[in-house]
Amino acid sequence: MSEQDREREEFLRVARTARDAAAGLAPLPRAAKDAALHAIADALVDGAARIVKANETDVARARENGTPEYMIDRLSLSAERIAAIAEAVREVAALPDPVGETVRGNVLPNGLELRQVRVPLGVVGIIYEGRPNVTVDAAALCLKSGNVAMLRGSSSAYESNSVLVTVMQEALRGTDVPADAVQLVPGTSRDSVKHLMRARGLVDVLIPRGGASLINSVVEESTVPVIETGVGNCSVYVDAAADLDTALDILVNSKTQRPSVCNAAETFLVHADVADEFVPRALAALKEKGVTVHGDERIRSFDGDVVEATEDDWYAEYLSLDIAARVVGSLDDAVAHIRRYGSGHTEAIVTTSQSAARRFTALVDSAAVMVNASTRFTDGGEFGFGAEIGISTQKLHARGPMGLPELTSTKYVVTGDGHLRGA
Amino acid sequence: MSEQDREREEFLRVARTARDAAAGLAPLPRAAKDAALHAIADALVDGAARIVKANETDVARARENGTPEYMIDRLSLSAERIAAIAEAVREVAALPDPVGETVRGNVLPNGLELRQVRVPLGVVGIIYEGRPNVTVDAAALCLKSGNVAMLRGSSSAYESNSVLVTVMQEALRGTDVPADAVQLVPGTSRDSVKHLMRARGLVDVLIPRGGASLINSVVEESTVPVIETGVGNCSVYVDAAADLDTALDILVNSKTQRPSVCNAAETFLVHADVADEFVPRALAALKEKGVTVHGDERIRSFDGDVVEATEDDWYAEYLSLDIAARVVGSLDDAVAHIRRYGSGHTEAIVTTSQSAARRFTALVDSAAVMVNASTRFTDGGEFGFGAEIGISTQKLHARGPMGLPELTSTKYVVTGDGHLRGA
Repeated sequence: MSEQDREREEFLRVARTARDAAAGLAPLPRAAKDAALHAIADALVDGAARIVKANETDVARARENGTPEYMIDRLSLSAERIAAIAEAVREVAALPDPVGETVRGNVLPNGLELRQVRVPLGVVGIIYEGRPNVTVDAAALCLKSGNVAMLRGSSSAYESNSVLVTVMQEALRGTDVPADAVQLVPGTSRDSVKHLMRARGLVDVLIPRGGASLINSVVEESTVPVIETGVGNCSVYVDAAADLDTALDILVNSKTQRPSVCNAAETFLVHADVADEFVPRALAALKEKGVTVHGDERIRSFDGDVVEATEDDWYAEYLSLDIAARVVGSLDDAVAHIRRYGSGHTEAIVTTSQSAARRFTALVDSAAVMVNASTRFTDGGEFGFGAEIGISTQKLHARGPMGLPELTSTKYVVTGDGHLRGA
Repeated sequence: MSEQDREREEFLRVARTARDAAAGLAPLPRAAKDAALHAIADALVDGAARIVKANETDVARARENGTPEYMIDRLSLSAERIAAIAEAVREVAALPDPVGETVRGNVLPNGLELRQVRVPLGVVGIIYEGRPNVTVDAAALCLKSGNVAMLRGSSSAYESNSVLVTVMQEALRGTDVPADAVQLVPGTSRDSVKHLMRARGLVDVLIPRGGASLINSVVEESTVPVIETGVGNCSVYVDAAADLDTALDILVNSKTQRPSVCNAAETFLVHADVADEFVPRALAALKEKGVTVHGDERIRSFDGDVVEATEDDWYAEYLSLDIAARVVGSLDDAVAHIRRYGSGHTEAIVTTSQSAARRFTALVDSAAVMVNASTRFTDGGEFGFGAEIGISTQKLHARGPMGLPELTSTKYVVTGDGHLRGA
């Protein structure tokens, strides 16, 4: 057997184990799942030294490879960070259990009782980058929602992830939850991702968490259904009827409060009627925060430091202190710009006009539309979901921040007393 | 330009037209959509002669090709059938509009108003077989839910479908709904399906309606998200605690009331404790209805006419007067059989035991689980949805009968008065 075949066999073995564990996990009541989550949290704290030691191997290799310092920081674990990760697991335990919730229910005219109830998805594959905290977060959210997690983190964190999963599995052995309910995809090769993407029938959904290129390649190659997450080219539109102080605050907050995340603004659009008054103030405020503005001709006419915007800038998810800027002739022109270049994540309008707010929210087709609020609010925590597995930018199944209910499907339970169909 | 390139260009032109139409259709209120549906219904009745003429071309070609009579029947249109199709369009107009419904809403601790509202999916691609009534049904359901339909029917019905779409587009010209809101995928080649499956970014979802091989090939090749529909290997489990008269009625109804549809039973499982009493009665009743039973050794011991069941029989979706039959040692064995061989559509238990019903509904992971009712009830009409675009057998987005709400996504509308994020 070739090395490739061997790896594929090993993947299938793990995936079938996951499938069986899913059958055992799905019907467990909340108390059993919460007890298991607390056991995991305890085991992480107890195993901190062992986890840190494995992590040091990953970190040392990353340094040898010349990995940039901000990525080393994401990769690094300490006893303190592990304690925080364990605390997050306890917070997941405290959330309500979505499984079993009756989504709708009624008695049909013929007397059949119809109930649509939430059930786990089954086996959830998660593909993510070099942040070992995601290994635990994702496993905890999946477990709470009755799903088995098949985790495929970055190869740069493989040692850390292996130990984290081992510690979690060991913790589960003393609980009612099957130890196999948390699984690491074996191997670090490119093929191991491929196996996961082709495991239709064994894996129920794939959630890639990472940059646009990772997500695109998963969508292209996967036969398992995919939930796209997290690419955000968000925009702030300053309407003709905006309160300009409010607009300035929202623009600066949306761009600079945390520029590296998907709900940070990457574009601002300003109505021509207020451009002369607003743009100079905006450019000054952004400059003060260290932001480089990539503007159209009109924006550039206000300040020689504005860089010329190219077509690529309108599409860009900078994730840095850069923003694209354009003057538009109308609200509808702003909507047309967003429709063409946006990623469907979050768009904000700043306006005092009720009719402008109504039209913008009706016409903009994004996961979240903000009226007089920062784009940074699109977040499971801010929305009160208690936890978030990602922010979906697709329209099927889940859109926007995904909490525990978004990790479930439903089934219909129909109860009769010998009902037969006539026609 | 090669013929292939030309066809691809033509497809992209139509798809972009559909995308633009979707932007115009999405914000329209119910009254505009209902008026358009009534205009379509009127136009179908008025255009019946023209539609029947085009249909005659398809039917004549199908006869030349030696198409079986039951398929010719599905393909054929008459003035009477067209009137019934038009009536179904009026019934869709009478259904509530799912778009704009607030799915959840609350005020966050910081005063932000959060609303999750239903919005159309956008452009919905439908791939289906030689039933021209689906052309109109699917277009009407999409239009009512604010979606543009991109229709790709069987090439055998291309003339009929072309005229039906033309008649619908002409009808829309006198309404507020864009005429391009109903589109036929151009061409009849295999490539034209491929273009649809690769139109990610232009088409929001694909719904294949047809046999397992069509659905599998779409899932394999599509980069557009797919909703799988309609493959049903449904089973009836007769529990040790079943009322056997009820069990007999449900088994016969599930199998024979309409054998050609996806919610007909294809397997029956009977608990060993009642096999001696139940199986002979079941075999006699099924024989009387002309059903061929494919049984395991125990079932065959009751009647020499029972055919030996192979592994393939347990997986089979016969859609005919055939059924696979097996004696199981326990309810859990029945569940294990279903988990291994079922298609996740509908399973029924017949039992008088509350605990057996509770365990079966908890453990069986199918779109619908019936207790003391025929599998034939899994149907959008029976469930009171008023209409059905298909029955989803996948877990993502929609599961079970899909009505109008299942043709929508949601977006979050968040309203503040200058809210900024602090941390």
